Amino acid sequence: MEIKELKLFPIGKVVNASYPFQIKIDDTFCQGLKHLELFSHVHIFWWADKHDNEKDRSTLVTDLPYANNVTAGVFACRAPYRPNPIAVTTCPIVNIDQNNGMIELAYIDAELNTPVLDIKPYIPVSDRIKEVKTAYWFDNWPEWMEDAASFFTEHE
Amino acid sequence: MEIKELKLFPIGKVVNASYPFQIKIDDTFCQGLKHLELFSHVHIFWWADKHDNEKDRSTLVTDLPYANNVTAGVFACRAPYRPNPIAVTTCPIVNIDQNNGMIELAYIDAELNTPVLDIKPYIPVSDRIKEVKTAYWFDNWPEWMEDAASFFTEHE
Repeated sequence: MEIKELKLFPIGKVVNASYPFQIKIDDTFCQGLKHLELFSHVHIFWWADKHDNEKDRSTLVTDLPYANNVTAGVFACRAPYRPNPIAVTTCPIVNIDQNNGMIELAYIDAELNTPVLDIKPYIPVSDRIKEVKTAYWFDNWPEWMEDAASFFTEHE
Repeated sequence: MEIKELKLFPIGKVVNASYPFQIKIDDTFCQGLKHLELFSHVHIFWWADKHDNEKDRSTLVTDLPYANNVTAGVFACRAPYRPNPIAVTTCPIVNIDQNNGMIELAYIDAELNTPVLDIKPYIPVSDRIKEVKTAYWFDNWPEWMEDAASFFTEHE
């Protein structure tokens, strides 16, 4: 297959990496936020720029930190090192200030200055699966994002 | 903000756009699929190449086809025309053939030859939200992806 490079660029970046987490969208794109305040959650697409290097982008398998003796493909986990270091986080919206291009989030696992690529609302009909099967190493993990914080605190 | 271009490239493409939908991953990346067969659903990240043009990439607001008289920002809907034409679809896995880089899916809303950018497993703790609020025009839409097909058939 011909490897054709695609034109991707940041539309904004993370400007505060603690609560309330903040994303500043470039002024050019503020209009694109219209009505996003009507949703409770967004998918934030971001670029794992710390892993945008040849070594990390050619990594195809990895030892899972949360599963003993399991080596999985990067497409079977959420590792930030992968051929295209795109990450997506589902984030609870705290506030949207369209005029200033400011998005406040209850949480995002991206660092300060991380480039943001895209934003989409979380819509149950596209995003919420009733019957899900995951690999066995997730057997004891929570069934819902709302239960993530307490789970990870208990297992630290 | 400095607009720095990021290096993105296809890892594969859609090779069959009807059931069972098929994605062929380039041979270079097949190893990255290891253990993906243990999951029931994947997020397929794809490039809406039909909309990779200046006009569509500078579109910031749009009339919603499913809501009368509503103009929303592209970051408040799933329109494929947006500054970075990245799309993501949550797809039920039918089969994974790691050796040949073939992924069979029950459904994907991407066309034949659409470039694929990334693949991640669907994991409830990251992806499943119990309490979701959406814009009012989704009030009568299904709460689950499993109910999408019958809903859209009834409303065609």
